[in-house]
Amino acid sequence: QRRGIPEAILAEGKSTADVVALAEAALETTDRALVTRATETQIEALETELTVSFPDATVERRGSTVRATTDGFEESSLEATVGIVTAGTVDGPVADETEVVCADAGATVDRIDDVGVAALDRTLDQVDRLRDADVLVVAAGREGALPTVIAGLVDTPVIAVPVASGYGHGGDGEAALAGMLQSCTVLSVVNIDAGFVAGAQATLIARAIDDART
Amino acid sequence: QRRGIPEAILAEGKSTADVVALAEAALETTDRALVTRATETQIEALETELTVSFPDATVERRGSTVRATTDGFEESSLEATVGIVTAGTVDGPVADETEVVCADAGATVDRIDDVGVAALDRTLDQVDRLRDADVLVVAAGREGALPTVIAGLVDTPVIAVPVASGYGHGGDGEAALAGMLQSCTVLSVVNIDAGFVAGAQATLIARAIDDART
Amino acid sequence: QRRGIPEAILAEGKSTADVVALAEAALETTDRALVTRATETQIEALETELTVSFPDATVERRGSTVRATTDGFEESSLEATVGIVTAGTVDGPVADETEVVCADAGATVDRIDDVGVAALDRTLDQVDRLRDADVLVVAAGREGALPTVIAGLVDTPVIAVPVASGYGHGGDGEAALAGMLQSCTVLSVVNIDAGFVAGAQATLIARAIDDART
Amino acid sequence: QRRGIPEAILAEGKSTADVVALAEAALETTDRALVTRATETQIEALETELTVSFPDATVERRGSTVRATTDGFEESSLEATVGIVTAGTVDGPVADETEVVCADAGATVDRIDDVGVAALDRTLDQVDRLRDADVLVVAAGREGALPTVIAGLVDTPVIAVPVASGYGHGGDGEAALAGMLQSCTVLSVVNIDAGFVAGAQATLIARAIDDART
Amino acid sequence: QRRGIPEAILAEGKSTADVVALAEAALETTDRALVTRATETQIEALETELTVSFPDATVERRGSTVRATTDGFEESSLEATVGIVTAGTVDGPVADETEVVCADAGATVDRIDDVGVAALDRTLDQVDRLRDADVLVVAAGREGALPTVIAGLVDTPVIAVPVASGYGHGGDGEAALAGMLQSCTVLSVVNIDAGFVAGAQATLIARAIDDART
Amino acid sequence: QRRGIPEAILAEGKSTADVVALAEAALETTDRALVTRATETQIEALETELTVSFPDATVERRGSTVRATTDGFEESSLEATVGIVTAGTVDGPVADETEVVCADAGATVDRIDDVGVAALDRTLDQVDRLRDADVLVVAAGREGALPTVIAGLVDTPVIAVPVASGYGHGGDGEAALAGMLQSCTVLSVVNIDAGFVAGAQATLIARAIDDART
Amino acid sequence: QRRGIPEAILAEGKSTADVVALAEAALETTDRALVTRATETQIEALETELTVSFPDATVERRGSTVRATTDGFEESSLEATVGIVTAGTVDGPVADETEVVCADAGATVDRIDDVGVAALDRTLDQVDRLRDADVLVVAAGREGALPTVIAGLVDTPVIAVPVASGYGHGGDGEAALAGMLQSCTVLSVVNIDAGFVAGAQATLIARAIDDART
Amino acid sequence: QRRGIPEAILAEGKSTADVVALAEAALETTDRALVTRATETQIEALETELTVSFPDATVERRGSTVRATTDGFEESSLEATVGIVTAGTVDGPVADETEVVCADAGATVDRIDDVGVAALDRTLDQVDRLRDADVLVVAAGREGALPTVIAGLVDTPVIAVPVASGYGHGGDGEAALAGMLQSCTVLSVVNIDAGFVAGAQATLIARAIDDART
Ligand SMILES: Nc1ncnc2c1ncn2[C@@H]1O[C@H](COP(=O)(O)O)[C@@H](O)[C@H]1O
Ligand SMILES: Nc1ncnc2c1ncn2[C@@H]1O[C@H](COP(=O)(O)O)[C@@H](O)[C@H]1O
Ligand SMILES: Nc1ncnc2c1ncn2[C@@H]1O[C@H](COP(=O)(O)O)[C@@H](O)[C@H]1O
Ligand SMILES: Nc1ncnc2c1ncn2[C@@H]1O[C@H](COP(=O)(O)O)[C@@H](O)[C@H]1O
Ligand SMILES: [Mg+2]
Ligand SMILES: [Mg+2]
Ligand SMILES: [Mg+2]
Ligand SMILES: [Mg+2]
Ligand SMILES: [Mg+2]
Ligand SMILES: [Mg+2]
Ligand SMILES: [Mg+2]
Ligand SMILES: [Mg+2]
Repeated sequence: QRRGIPEAILAEGKSTADVVALAEAALETTDRALVTRATETQIEALETELTVSFPDATVERRGSTVRATTDGFEESSLEATVGIVTAGTVDGPVADETEVVCADAGATVDRIDDVGVAALDRTLDQVDRLRDADVLVVAAGREGALPTVIAGLVDTPVIAVPVASGYGHGGDGEAALAGMLQSCTVLSVVNIDAGFVAGAQATLIARAIDDART
Repeated sequence: QRRGIPEAILAEGKSTADVVALAEAALETTDRALVTRATETQIEALETELTVSFPDATVERRGSTVRATTDGFEESSLEATVGIVTAGTVDGPVADETEVVCADAGATVDRIDDVGVAALDRTLDQVDRLRDADVLVVAAGREGALPTVIAGLVDTPVIAVPVASGYGHGGDGEAALAGMLQSCTVLSVVNIDAGFVAGAQATLIARAIDDART
Repeated sequence: QRRGIPEAILAEGKSTADVVALAEAALETTDRALVTRATETQIEALETELTVSFPDATVERRGSTVRATTDGFEESSLEATVGIVTAGTVDGPVADETEVVCADAGATVDRIDDVGVAALDRTLDQVDRLRDADVLVVAAGREGALPTVIAGLVDTPVIAVPVASGYGHGGDGEAALAGMLQSCTVLSVVNIDAGFVAGAQATLIARAIDDART
Repeated sequence: QRRGIPEAILAEGKSTADVVALAEAALETTDRALVTRATETQIEALETELTVSFPDATVERRGSTVRATTDGFEESSLEATVGIVTAGTVDGPVADETEVVCADAGATVDRIDDVGVAALDRTLDQVDRLRDADVLVVAAGREGALPTVIAGLVDTPVIAVPVASGYGHGGDGEAALAGMLQSCTVLSVVNIDAGFVAGAQATLIARAIDDART
Repeated sequence: QRRGIPEAILAEGKSTADVVALAEAALETTDRALVTRATETQIEALETELTVSFPDATVERRGSTVRATTDGFEESSLEATVGIVTAGTVDGPVADETEVVCADAGATVDRIDDVGVAALDRTLDQVDRLRDADVLVVAAGREGALPTVIAGLVDTPVIAVPVASGYGHGGDGEAALAGMLQSCTVLSVVNIDAGFVAGAQATLIARAIDDART
Repeated sequence: QRRGIPEAILAEGKSTADVVALAEAALETTDRALVTRATETQIEALETELTVSFPDATVERRGSTVRATTDGFEESSLEATVGIVTAGTVDGPVADETEVVCADAGATVDRIDDVGVAALDRTLDQVDRLRDADVLVVAAGREGALPTVIAGLVDTPVIAVPVASGYGHGGDGEAALAGMLQSCTVLSVVNIDAGFVAGAQATLIARAIDDART
Repeated sequence: QRRGIPEAILAEGKSTADVVALAEAALETTDRALVTRATETQIEALETELTVSFPDATVERRGSTVRATTDGFEESSLEATVGIVTAGTVDGPVADETEVVCADAGATVDRIDDVGVAALDRTLDQVDRLRDADVLVVAAGREGALPTVIAGLVDTPVIAVPVASGYGHGGDGEAALAGMLQSCTVLSVVNIDAGFVAGAQATLIARAIDDART
Repeated sequence: QRRGIPEAILAEGKSTADVVALAEAALETTDRALVTRATETQIEALETELTVSFPDATVERRGSTVRATTDGFEESSLEATVGIVTAGTVDGPVADETEVVCADAGATVDRIDDVGVAALDRTLDQVDRLRDADVLVVAAGREGALPTVIAGLVDTPVIAVPVASGYGHGGDGEAALAGMLQSCTVLSVVNIDAGFVAGAQATLIARAIDDART
């Protein structure tokens, strides 16, 4: 756990048996397991089987993310706030992944939903909360302009997450990704739907700030 | 001239001789010629040769656009306003093309420059002018989000023009085009750098409104 | 409802529960709900649940679009005609979406089906109806040339909708989109399959004309 | 010369020295040389050097194509007509390449220029000439719809040539190519700007018809 | 039926009810119906329902193609041979579509399977049959080189059909399409998997030859 | 200058006159001007003209970046270190842009060149310096793997800059961009060749750490 | 079997009946059948039907690969070692295909799993085994950098296999493919997921070495 | 020089001064310098300056490749033959790069030019030479099928080099690359125009065979 962020298990593309085995190994060695992008079948298997092999385990699910801890696990704590912003309902599950990672690291999470640029007032109403965060993650698909608009309103580092929530030309997240890379304000970008990576990068920044604070 | 918009001559990809000949034919038959996307060489040839073959011709250049009229030409007039908006300096030449077409048709043009989303105040400061137009053309490249933001502030039809003014991934206008097609507000789009088409489409809408008015 | 067009709910990518809840909220606040791109499951849930929560609601489905109104809803009316044209049967569902939006806004809709360019006579036969409309929406997939041909026959603003109805190279609507953007006549374009956006844009234009008329 | 079409030399990407040497070898062995896609430098070298090494050579240039024959060369003759159609001036040079190949093979060439779909009357005016040809080559760029429209008016095999004459999204010929491949009428396609290949394929068809006739 | 090729019904993307209705209309007016790219469900519906509505109908299926004729139908006949070549088993269904169209038009079909370039002897063994055809259709996917190799061996017009039979980079037919467009021998190309279009184009050429012969 | 980073002027795509005027305005209002991606012509004009209009100006050039300050300018200072890493010589100019921005903000810059993954020892030799930085910017083109390898060795936030320094498939920076987005370690990414954006984002993080420290 | 590698049957895209028939033909003529990329249905049919038609057959499955031999089959043997390396669990099935081919040819296989670049120590720990192989196959998806890193550590020919195991931009193996083609160390590449081709190429190299040895 | 292949200097994208300095450093430390993809300016500078700084240096140029050695350099020797095949004249410069690398390593080079698949006899005429090589490099652009055809005729490992020698769709080498990756015979591929990489990989294989031989 060199990087100060949990080694997550990427469930996608793996057999259910493999995912459970990897989660059990993580619980065995670190008292915690974090699984992302899991299917319903994989989630059910994790919920059932982890509580059998680790009777003291707590297994929590959030969207397609599963987090399990055993009694021995010591929760981290971090004196820093990550603001997590979504443009609309469809961006929620990706932001949930970010939230799980940051919370796991002990950061304070401030989640701000539904502030799309089509109704700018709602965005402007949140400027104070946006400015109070130490680092911002902004997830958006058809509202790919949102991170640009937000980065223009704050002095905080912004990490943009393109979401595959449109249809037609570039609707698989490519339009959002390209727009974010071309942004005329300052931000950096992660892969399409990579809520986990955004959360991990935000955690690294939050931890550096926390280190400097304490 | 069925459509109520001038038949423009697209200079790009044609020999200078061809362009001059086509412009002369247009002056001959309609007392006006409109040439777009011309090179410096083509523009100089037009300026020199048209005034030779048509001693009474007025030849005006705006960026890469050339418009010539002879004495016989009767300027149109249109009771409607087209708002033409740019995000930044680099979008200027494309918007100039739009302006030439709309002015040629007799529409009132309200040009609003430099209202990029990176500095939202400047955009918000212009809301009244934006709302006063009958139709809006918004040209933007790296600020591909601008038409989306503007369309969220007005009830006017918005035509978005993606501009090839970035670099790297999608910097040739593809990022702006894709973002505009995915926009979560209501707008329609023309080809990358197609200031002429946007102006012609705006003119058609302005003319329909003018017809209804008068 | 600033823009004069209904806030539609894009069902795609949302859970059925979310879609129903958003529709109920819309009915609650505006006496109307418009849902687009819904799956069979989502449509059935809307039909069942909305009539339970709003016993006076009328729920109408057209293709993948659902529109619900309660008794209190006052239908709009607009003195302007939107012509909606399809090249073939496969383009129907996309044009249906356009039709629902325009009708909802109170515009007169003139639907003209099956006028593909492969049999030009059928297109030419409709020239009078095409010219009578105030604004035209033309939906086409493999017949991506249709909006170009029609825009060459009329003075009306044309909005082109590329449809994902082909196969092979560009058959997902990309060939139609690219062809429409390159069109040598005057038209503007919306995203692939974006019948809703085309209808909303046509409505904005129709409303501007209606305003000028009255 | 098995295929009944001349082995042309593709000048592009070769050194001028190589192109001249290849043309000399062709003249030496077949009394004729056909060079396509040559630069100005290559053309001048061919014009100068071929007449030195072959004092009896006739060297003709058409656009970027050069054809040289010596006295010994016996012109072919073919009882069949190839119709070659362009949408606009910019498509001319590509169609010129087609024309050189078909004429070289002895086919009658009927060249029909400037019949773009934006002004459909001009296309319809030519229907009789179009129907009289044995095979049609249609070259178009931004008017990518033209081959589709023409193929809907005739019973003749149509070969479509996409031309790289636009700008913006797909303006390098990709929009035309994709549209032609998706065409809802019957046609086959060659590479972007491949006037030579279209001419050679038309020649093969013309020759088969000529064989059947005689 | 101007073009001398049957108006086929493209089933893909249409409802089963629509497909059946269109086939019934075709039988009603022309005594024949040809349906391509049909699903199993659509095929079964056609087999069941057409024989109910037209008790004298013969309904034949070949892969995803269905052809129905009633007693009144008069089969065409054409004095010309279309050679149809496949590289491997996976290319069969696409070539079947070609075969149905050509046979329907009354052409003699010579089908040559499994002559991929990986085992060149098998290709070379067929040179005589290849040369005897009046026109050749060559369908290939991972063996995208096959039409190039064959066109180098014959004087016959070759129509190449790229097939979506690979995996990985370009395995959806794009590699074959691009290779065929770049071919250094003379051939023209149709869309990926467009066996029908290839067959219709081959039929037009065969008919022109048949006309010249008789 | 809300964001704590200088407003840089992107010279690319602007006329030389525009660039000089924008730089003069910046000097006038903020005593500093920062110009990126300038051509030789633009740089020479800046060097000549700025020292004329502002006789007390210092004008420094680094690659395609120009920075000018007048006497009144107060240099910033920041207690934080940005490590800037390149894979090879060709990545230098992009990293230079990053360096100018970070130095301008007063951060300590630790530049580490030539640590490509082809010779892993050189990378491993620098681990201590890499770990000592507060934030890392890693620029790489054909060595697109470098940021992944480095992010696996440190706990520091890593910002990856894809560089357009290859040739062939993806050599325009797209291969590096895609690889960085897919990275299995934690990092965020900026646009191809966007050394300025990476520097600005690193500065925001450095400033947050500096704020926390002091 | 000229090439010294088994003719494998690519099951993908073929009907189950076709696959079984091809496998039976292979067993009949060569006493062995190798089937790749088979579905569960195809595998079950092979397991059931081959043991019926060939009662003495041994049918072994590995992932989506099936290998059958009859008593008469003589196993090959090869004095050379192929090292097969994977970055992570998801790359396993592709490497399994490689392993089956190399083992079938009688090569010694040294399989090294889970040596991704995110944890470089694990890679460096294996340097001796990597250097002992005669040829290396390295399969990686999100860890597309792995073959580059390994090729920098050894003198052995490296064949890289991009794996489609990511998500988002280039996650279908395109990011890995592009990165491998741009690699700044020496390696050659096969198609995405083409474990079979990599194994066959490694076998050809191993056989050449074995020939030279013996 | 761990890999047994010379560290070549990729000139492209570097300043002339940098290239000369890097070559001098290589001569200083290894008595040899190999520079690839150099411009005319870079080549002239190398020819002039290296003979000044190293009066005993021999500087040889081949196309865009420069190789310099000083008296102290000991030429390698390798008992193995690399066959280098081109489809046409335009593929020559890429194959030249391959040849320089293999010759530098001391391998015997057998160069076979102009054996494109359009005239299959020429290919078949060379089968014996092709079979005599220990490893084959095949460079082809519009003849992208050539490596597939050759790999079907031999038992030797084949490395395919796609060449950017076409025009239109995929003419920048992408068509050749995709076709080679899809090849139905066994081969591995390097980047477009990467003659150097192909030669280096061939050298590694040749060296392994040479080691086994001696
Ligand atoms: N949703 C995710 N997106 C991107 N990377 C992830 C995700 N979840 C886990 N990872 C990372 O992927 C790697 C795990 O890959 P694996 O060994 O295949 O489970 C670790 O480095 C994780 O930190
Ligand atoms: N079919 C559609 N295509 C494009 N935009 C739509 C569609 N249906 C609804 N919208 C718009 O998408 C936004 C709704 O997004 P959401 O909040 O995710 O439901 C609103 O601005 C709608 O007007
Ligand atoms: N403009 C062209 N487009 C496509 N193929 C051509 C063209 N000109 C010549 N060719 C063909 O390209 C091959 C000549 O290639 P090369 O040997 O490189 O000169 C011959 O098969 C010619 O028939
Ligand atoms: N997984 C695979 N990937 C690529 N090529 C394969 C694969 N499996 C078999 N092949 C090759 O594909 C050809 C078999 O194609 P087919 O005749 O369609 O079975 C043979 O040349 C095989 O060596
Ligand atoms: Mg900001
Ligand atoms: Mg709006
Ligand atoms: Mg028109
Ligand atoms: Mg027709
Ligand atoms: Mg041929
Ligand atoms: Mg790390
Ligand atoms: Mg190495
Ligand atoms: Mg072989």
